[in-house]
Amino acid sequence: MPQEKLNIGVVGLGTNGSMHFKQLQHMDSVHIVGVADPLIEKRKEELDFAGIDIITTDYQDLLNNEGINSIFFFTPSNQHLKNIKDAAKAHKNIFCEKPLSKDGSLRECKDVLKEVENARVKLQIGFNRRFDPQFKQIHDRVQAGEIGTPQIIKVVARDPFVIPYDFIQNSGGLIQDFTAHDFDMARYQAGSDIDSVFIQSSILIDPKLAEFNDVDTLTASVKFKNGALGLIDESRKAVYGYDQRVEVFGPKGMLKAENVSKSTVECYNDQNISLKKPLDYYLTRFEEAYLEEKNLFVDSVLNDKAVICTGEDALKAICCSNAALKSQETGQAVKVQY
Amino acid sequence: MPQEKLNIGVVGLGTNGSMHFKQLQHMDSVHIVGVADPLIEKRKEELDFAGIDIITTDYQDLLNNEGINSIFFFTPSNQHLKNIKDAAKAHKNIFCEKPLSKDGSLRECKDVLKEVENARVKLQIGFNRRFDPQFKQIHDRVQAGEIGTPQIIKVVARDPFVIPYDFIQNSGGLIQDFTAHDFDMARYQAGSDIDSVFIQSSILIDPKLAEFNDVDTLTASVKFKNGALGLIDESRKAVYGYDQRVEVFGPKGMLKAENVSKSTVECYNDQNISLKKPLDYYLTRFEEAYLEEKNLFVDSVLNDKAVICTGEDALKAICCSNAALKSQETGQAVKVQY
Amino acid sequence: MPQEKLNIGVVGLGTNGSMHFKQLQHMDSVHIVGVADPLIEKRKEELDFAGIDIITTDYQDLLNNEGINSIFFFTPSNQHLKNIKDAAKAHKNIFCEKPLSKDGSLRECKDVLKEVENARVKLQIGFNRRFDPQFKQIHDRVQAGEIGTPQIIKVVARDPFVIPYDFIQNSGGLIQDFTAHDFDMARYQAGSDIDSVFIQSSILIDPKLAEFNDVDTLTASVKFKNGALGLIDESRKAVYGYDQRVEVFGPKGMLKAENVSKSTVECYNDQNISLKKPLDYYLTRFEEAYLEEKNLFVDSVLNDKAVICTGEDALKAICCSNAALKSQETGQAVKVQY
Amino acid sequence: MPQEKLNIGVVGLGTNGSMHFKQLQHMDSVHIVGVADPLIEKRKEELDFAGIDIITTDYQDLLNNEGINSIFFFTPSNQHLKNIKDAAKAHKNIFCEKPLSKDGSLRECKDVLKEVENARVKLQIGFNRRFDPQFKQIHDRVQAGEIGTPQIIKVVARDPFVIPYDFIQNSGGLIQDFTAHDFDMARYQAGSDIDSVFIQSSILIDPKLAEFNDVDTLTASVKFKNGALGLIDESRKAVYGYDQRVEVFGPKGMLKAENVSKSTVECYNDQNISLKKPLDYYLTRFEEAYLEEKNLFVDSVLNDKAVICTGEDALKAICCSNAALKSQETGQAVKVQY
Repeated sequence: MPQEKLNIGVVGLGTNGSMHFKQLQHMDSVHIVGVADPLIEKRKEELDFAGIDIITTDYQDLLNNEGINSIFFFTPSNQHLKNIKDAAKAHKNIFCEKPLSKDGSLRECKDVLKEVENARVKLQIGFNRRFDPQFKQIHDRVQAGEIGTPQIIKVVARDPFVIPYDFIQNSGGLIQDFTAHDFDMARYQAGSDIDSVFIQSSILIDPKLAEFNDVDTLTASVKFKNGALGLIDESRKAVYGYDQRVEVFGPKGMLKAENVSKSTVECYNDQNISLKKPLDYYLTRFEEAYLEEKNLFVDSVLNDKAVICTGEDALKAICCSNAALKSQETGQAVKVQY
Repeated sequence: MPQEKLNIGVVGLGTNGSMHFKQLQHMDSVHIVGVADPLIEKRKEELDFAGIDIITTDYQDLLNNEGINSIFFFTPSNQHLKNIKDAAKAHKNIFCEKPLSKDGSLRECKDVLKEVENARVKLQIGFNRRFDPQFKQIHDRVQAGEIGTPQIIKVVARDPFVIPYDFIQNSGGLIQDFTAHDFDMARYQAGSDIDSVFIQSSILIDPKLAEFNDVDTLTASVKFKNGALGLIDESRKAVYGYDQRVEVFGPKGMLKAENVSKSTVECYNDQNISLKKPLDYYLTRFEEAYLEEKNLFVDSVLNDKAVICTGEDALKAICCSNAALKSQETGQAVKVQY
Repeated sequence: MPQEKLNIGVVGLGTNGSMHFKQLQHMDSVHIVGVADPLIEKRKEELDFAGIDIITTDYQDLLNNEGINSIFFFTPSNQHLKNIKDAAKAHKNIFCEKPLSKDGSLRECKDVLKEVENARVKLQIGFNRRFDPQFKQIHDRVQAGEIGTPQIIKVVARDPFVIPYDFIQNSGGLIQDFTAHDFDMARYQAGSDIDSVFIQSSILIDPKLAEFNDVDTLTASVKFKNGALGLIDESRKAVYGYDQRVEVFGPKGMLKAENVSKSTVECYNDQNISLKKPLDYYLTRFEEAYLEEKNLFVDSVLNDKAVICTGEDALKAICCSNAALKSQETGQAVKVQY
Repeated sequence: MPQEKLNIGVVGLGTNGSMHFKQLQHMDSVHIVGVADPLIEKRKEELDFAGIDIITTDYQDLLNNEGINSIFFFTPSNQHLKNIKDAAKAHKNIFCEKPLSKDGSLRECKDVLKEVENARVKLQIGFNRRFDPQFKQIHDRVQAGEIGTPQIIKVVARDPFVIPYDFIQNSGGLIQDFTAHDFDMARYQAGSDIDSVFIQSSILIDPKLAEFNDVDTLTASVKFKNGALGLIDESRKAVYGYDQRVEVFGPKGMLKAENVSKSTVECYNDQNISLKKPLDYYLTRFEEAYLEEKNLFVDSVLNDKAVICTGEDALKAICCSNAALKSQETGQAVKVQY
């Protein structure tokens, strides 16, 4: 039985873009019509473009192509708003990596989302963690009422090592790089918007971060509009690997997702009982999530279903980050402005 | 070989006092010389006083007895300050249930601790959780440097059911009843004092608590003097049992204590894999802790060792609670006044 | 409320006997009227006999005492048959350590059980593992029908170290020392008698065992009368501790008891995730079982209930061991003669 | 960088063949030159043959093609010997599904392996479980000496449901269908050949199996040539899913692989703590193993490395099964004839 395929264009083939591109090549539900990247010549050495019609440095070539239905953007964060605007104008459905915007004002973001709405195209933002099988399972079971309305939501996000300083400097700091994700996860699980945010943070790992006005250890205490409470903790360096956990507590029970290790082997010796460490980084831990987010986007386009992570969701993450930045600055709780 | 025994008096034989009394009866290192309780006649029906010389309604009779070296107080919280003061005056070593004081001013507490110091007697406050084998193991391994200096400390404390309203009304509210314990646990694990406290709280379980000006769901975000960060979450009702967990994260790793179930039996069936729920309440979960705290106190008296949980520790828990109450009231972070 | 107490005598205060004696001293339901041991003078230095009326080298003194209702025998295995016979003659209820007999013929064993029956006294043999909370939980849930009629029963029994050679030489070999226990456990869980036995064994740990005609590694494959199948594996030395596991598989699921560690603390570091080793030896692992077996015996006497582990059960373990010895000798499967 | 690709032919596109074919299509290291299946027209409706040059009902067309280096056979078991012989004659490297032969005599098997040897082509038999990440990890750690020389090896193999009767009738019975696999796994882990085999078996699940002279519940007790002992247990129906476990015990410790569930989500409620059931069947549980076995074969051909599971290994599994059948028939232990 011939599988219907979505004709797509892929923009941005850096580290993450390459990973996404390879996954797209193995998806039976898509046909990659074209790829665009400013360094497309260099990409040819690393990637296999066999069977792809359009290979270009300018993504406008993809937008102009009538045969392309949807565009996947894996571009730098500061280009996202423009990317989305351009694609909406060309009436393409859009999958764009998070965040919605790095430096854009709330006004600009809202304007762009308005254009997407007017163009009547679909837009999905790649908050990959929502598509992690563990976290999605919790969300779906919570939604099904298994533990009642969530009362306490906890998110742990710890990186396995301090990323290079230049990445940190361009990341917008821990709050924009980590906490925005975690606010989204907390909202996703709570089923309610965040009302206020309180941040505590420290430099406990790498003193050099002070030069970038950044921190390496952070906790966030949030209150949701429905009264539920949330706790987030983050670290830039967990020596045991990539630590990503979620716990949701409600009147009928608790669901919690422990870290993922692909090994079930237990070793008993004269010292202790030991298991393998958790998966070591986001590319392995969230490999399935990265695939699933694209699969679900393709499904939502092909079958006209609602996307799971909308531009609105991405906008709310930015609102929460803004409040968090202000809390970090003032040392006090801050109400989120939407 | 004859075991040296400590001659003791026991004051207060209510629910918790009875539990402690029975444990003391089975301890090879103590000899119970006397017991005191205002309702001592009623206690005789429930407890076995065979071999005990002094059975009295007035604990002064125990303080006056030269043969008694140490007094164990399991009295109502609002009597603790007076109990300690009286025993110090009589030059008895003192084991007293937490808290140090329920309503006493910081001034009064400090005065009483001064009297204890001047009397050169030992005073141990029964913060039982410090003596839980799991939490103590974490503390000891942290102290031994296994994970480096703690950066994030997390404490979960959830009760299995809402305790009777009259208990709640006399407990001083969730902050004094639960959070004081958790502040102590956080300090114990962090190895640093709490500098500031931020509280979020809600009524999500039982609306009637509003009448007592109390809450049932609470989170605390604390910062320690050394920059480490702490997160505490509490609930008055976890349907799966008594949920008491601790997690300590540092530069060399993480130690976490999961809940305790005495069962290792796993059942695999066509629905799922299931294990028994955690131990259901504090009397079972902390049974060993209650025994250990008394054993260590007796050991510290018999062998002149430092006690593990001092009056100073208990005082600091009160200082933290005071800051927490203020944070709850103001909705802002509050610096702890010691 | 005054607890009814059973008046008892205790015979045999060696290593295990001392442990049992101390547990009996802390049991609210017994009153120890007398103790007997050939080395009673030496025992006085180690144990506390306060409040015990009869302290003797000759257990006949206890049998002659009218005030004593039940006798607990913790004597060498080769005395058990005589002990039971003597106590039955004196019309005392009997708790006797396993095995029923070390060298006695089946004929002798049956004769003694007949005398017990005729004397109308209760006899419980101390197959302690039946009273382990984990194994008993499995048994009770199997009996309640939770997984249907067992089809496969697996028992693991591995010691933490090779016991001293003189113990080994007096133990009757691995089959009588270990496998008899495991046959009893398998029967207990299967709810059916063992029909045939096949043994494989090796010396893989300590070549010196060949001198005693013994082995250190053994597997048993058994078939039950109802067609269910059983597998047992044993080792004299597991470097990670005392390994005692049971798994029961049936048409509606599987129940399995993992080893017991009192620690729930998990350590995550740059090497692995580690947990504490299992409890290290039978005195710790089966501490609760040793207490429970006595509690249930006392309960069965005080309230005239059936004992859980009868002389008949102990006899059947001997029959299985006999078949196992023959299988080991012949290298073939052997039908159990009852 | 262009990845070197192995030019291959694929023979047999039934249920398992289709699964393998789809995996091969996604492998960057192979180029599928041709496919052969007697029902190739029907396969076209189900599978995507785009880019494949030769699509034929007769696999001789693939053997005749000079551009094809290796042939993958996913044909019925009774054709394997002929398949291997034909491919060896055509000087193709061979990947063939297990077993080496269903009904062939040992003589025939050895003759065919001789022809493979003379043709100097590589032959890998698809004992997929050896390539399971869990079991392979145990094997590799054992080989690295982590627990010393294995003393006890245990294998559990339980299917989630009774497969259709016609499959059972053509499978050669439980011993050839299940136990052959488990003998191979036991040998693989033990690092020693099986010397003798003892089988117990029963019909406890489905009485109808008696009509096919088959059983549904089976245990095997094996002794290895180096004295190590092995235990295998099998069931045709575990209601909780596909139960595949391995445990290896040695002088320095124990390695055991628990079942695999992709979910780490724990649910705590008022009944119990529950986890998701293990993966439900071989296609999911061994998905990675099926991919890995082909990857390693391709790697061994491209880089002239030794294959991991040889014809010799497959032959030994048959020898063990033969002994097992004889043991089942005679009720006695049987020495394996190689």
